[in-house]
Amino acid sequence: MGMTMTQKILAAHAGLEQVKAGQLIKGKLDLVLGNDITTPVAIKEFKKMGVNKVFHKDKIAIVPDHFTPNKDIKSAEQCVECRDFVKEMDITNYFEVGRMGIEHALIPEKGLVVAGDVVIGADSHTCTYGALGAFSTGIGSTDMAAGMATGDAWFKVPDAIKFNITGELSEWVSGKDVILHIIGMIGVDGARYMSMEFSGEGLKNLNIDDRFTMANMAIEAGAKNGIFEVDDITIDYINEHSTKEYTIYKADEDAEYARVIDIDLSKLEPTVAFPHLPENTKTFDEIGDIDIHQVVIGSCTNGRIEDLRVAAKVLEGRQVASNVRAIIIPGTQKIYLQAIKEGLVEIFINSGAVFSTPTCGPCLGGHMGILAKGERAVSTTNRNFVGRMGSTESEVYLASPAVAAASAVTGKISSPKEVCK
Amino acid sequence: MGMTMTQKILAAHAGLEQVKAGQLIKGKLDLVLGNDITTPVAIKEFKKMGVNKVFHKDKIAIVPDHFTPNKDIKSAEQCVECRDFVKEMDITNYFEVGRMGIEHALIPEKGLVVAGDVVIGADSHTCTYGALGAFSTGIGSTDMAAGMATGDAWFKVPDAIKFNITGELSEWVSGKDVILHIIGMIGVDGARYMSMEFSGEGLKNLNIDDRFTMANMAIEAGAKNGIFEVDDITIDYINEHSTKEYTIYKADEDAEYARVIDIDLSKLEPTVAFPHLPENTKTFDEIGDIDIHQVVIGSCTNGRIEDLRVAAKVLEGRQVASNVRAIIIPGTQKIYLQAIKEGLVEIFINSGAVFSTPTCGPCLGGHMGILAKGERAVSTTNRNFVGRMGSTESEVYLASPAVAAASAVTGKISSPKEVCK
Repeated sequence: MGMTMTQKILAAHAGLEQVKAGQLIKGKLDLVLGNDITTPVAIKEFKKMGVNKVFHKDKIAIVPDHFTPNKDIKSAEQCVECRDFVKEMDITNYFEVGRMGIEHALIPEKGLVVAGDVVIGADSHTCTYGALGAFSTGIGSTDMAAGMATGDAWFKVPDAIKFNITGELSEWVSGKDVILHIIGMIGVDGARYMSMEFSGEGLKNLNIDDRFTMANMAIEAGAKNGIFEVDDITIDYINEHSTKEYTIYKADEDAEYARVIDIDLSKLEPTVAFPHLPENTKTFDEIGDIDIHQVVIGSCTNGRIEDLRVAAKVLEGRQVASNVRAIIIPGTQKIYLQAIKEGLVEIFINSGAVFSTPTCGPCLGGHMGILAKGERAVSTTNRNFVGRMGSTESEVYLASPAVAAASAVTGKISSPKEVCK
Repeated sequence: MGMTMTQKILAAHAGLEQVKAGQLIKGKLDLVLGNDITTPVAIKEFKKMGVNKVFHKDKIAIVPDHFTPNKDIKSAEQCVECRDFVKEMDITNYFEVGRMGIEHALIPEKGLVVAGDVVIGADSHTCTYGALGAFSTGIGSTDMAAGMATGDAWFKVPDAIKFNITGELSEWVSGKDVILHIIGMIGVDGARYMSMEFSGEGLKNLNIDDRFTMANMAIEAGAKNGIFEVDDITIDYINEHSTKEYTIYKADEDAEYARVIDIDLSKLEPTVAFPHLPENTKTFDEIGDIDIHQVVIGSCTNGRIEDLRVAAKVLEGRQVASNVRAIIIPGTQKIYLQAIKEGLVEIFINSGAVFSTPTCGPCLGGHMGILAKGERAVSTTNRNFVGRMGSTESEVYLASPAVAAASAVTGKISSPKEVCK
């Protein structure tokens, strides 16, 4: 029986010839990841296990990114716990405040994940690395602790939805619109515990940052993971960033899928997910005049260089509306430097936007852009649940960097096709 | 009887020929200032007064800067209160998150204060504008409310200490070292309710940013205000930034001072104020090996372009020690842009430092760099009281940008004269 990409990776990491959906397997881990919120909990669980070393000092990555620079005493003390543990266990991949970035932007940039890897992370958006043809999934802090101790994790092999991508995106439409469109179509539990597998001749028209954004939001459709077929774009990225060996796993011709969905990129339009679920998507023919107070461009979903480039293309020579705070946050320090080199930061500041150092901050209502009662934000982040970015009486509209930037200019939820025509 | 600079400004604003120390006078206000913490309180008091308009819509400035971008729901709602009031009263000078900066860096840059002005601000470091030859002082929110309503404020005319400045600073010594040296000499109540008046032939060797830093910290010696004699450096700055008319008030030859102190700039060395008072100053001959965890360069005291330039001079080609977080924060968006243009931001990020958007954040333990229990910071800010930057068991060492940057490199409190020799 044929296997999907995910099934082949899991089989290989379990030392099995063949696995099938629903089977429980124990897989070897190539990377275990934690952040400043989840790692302290994992450390506590790790210590309870009575082990005194981690399975591999190079295969664990700890990235304090959620409340950094430290927003309060508690978050500062969580970082101290991470730092002490890293020192005690001699963990190689610790990324301190100031030389770091947002975990899901940083880890691929540092070459710590390549095609064919199995990665677990105590953060729900760990599914991001599927963009590189890895099996990568979010787990809880207890699983992180067990993973750090043993280097293995138990998985139930997932069933899959195959997305057959064709065509080419029109101007101002990006990977964010594709994934919002998909979540709008299948719903927030449309891929529950399944793998979302992206393939097809249209992949060549999705750049690597589009793919990171799409894989990143697989969890918002309930998926276990999202994964892209490896092509030249993937290999170029891996060769540029990593010295690790990679393995390409292609789905078998006769792999079984729960569902196959065709996506013609050329048919897609800028898409916005209305409060309070990512599945509440609308295109601009359905969106009226909605005043906004804040725009956030950044996060593990859309804080990469292509995201900043498109935002700058919209904001260059334009001004952020006087009643809007536009907060733009690069994913990593490397992206920050690149944005300076390309003149993007000057464009942002001249337009009246804030350009912050990397942090998850506003996405999860952490800091650096919290909403008051009655306020509305257009945000390139990944979740628009009640109270996600502040007051339970605030609203978050999820969109692409292009839509967010266009909305910053007009002070209403706006299409870049209108603002930049 | 002769008058000091401060006394002459107050006399003119009270419509009197002559005033003397201790006299109560009612002075006309050229500017009333508030921030995101103090303005909501002032608004409440203003509304109680039963007035429905402010005395002058162009003579009030409201700058949300302390917890911005908004760190939590409460700070977001404080900004809403400011914004609603500004709209209701049609106040001209409101500086929104994203197009703003730290109030005491922004107000002079925007040309809102010039020589001879009388300014009150509901923030203790309002004394900063004395660098431009203005009388400027921090008041409470109730006084801010009364000032906004009437355009007047009552003052007790202060006595003065005259600082007769001579000589020239040696390399790596700056205005911050001068003011720390002075506070170390006279103590945190050494100028209680007095005016600190800076004059003498050495003034020409203090650039405008040195002067802002020195005037800014007058309050840390308990002073009512700090004020610099106006010279070509002042006039150049005012002409570059403002279209307002200015008046130069020189102290009378026979002005009376409570004390006259000679300061020979050439004798000063890099100076550090140890926990937990700004008067606990030491020079490097008295400082041993003190490990640190964080460095902050910024704030209304030292977030100006000269401050960033000297920090970059230290950090260029060097790396922040691996156990130190170095957080660098420009005072305004204009300074941010200038720092990009001069390549400073690239130097900072390449050295392993964070470069944030303008915010008061860490200085007052707000956000963006809070200390855990047991942590030590070298900071260019203005106060090192117990718990000022986080845990009551953390420590803050006040210093210049040069000392802070040198300390970031070594991970110990260090002199730039050693690190850069």
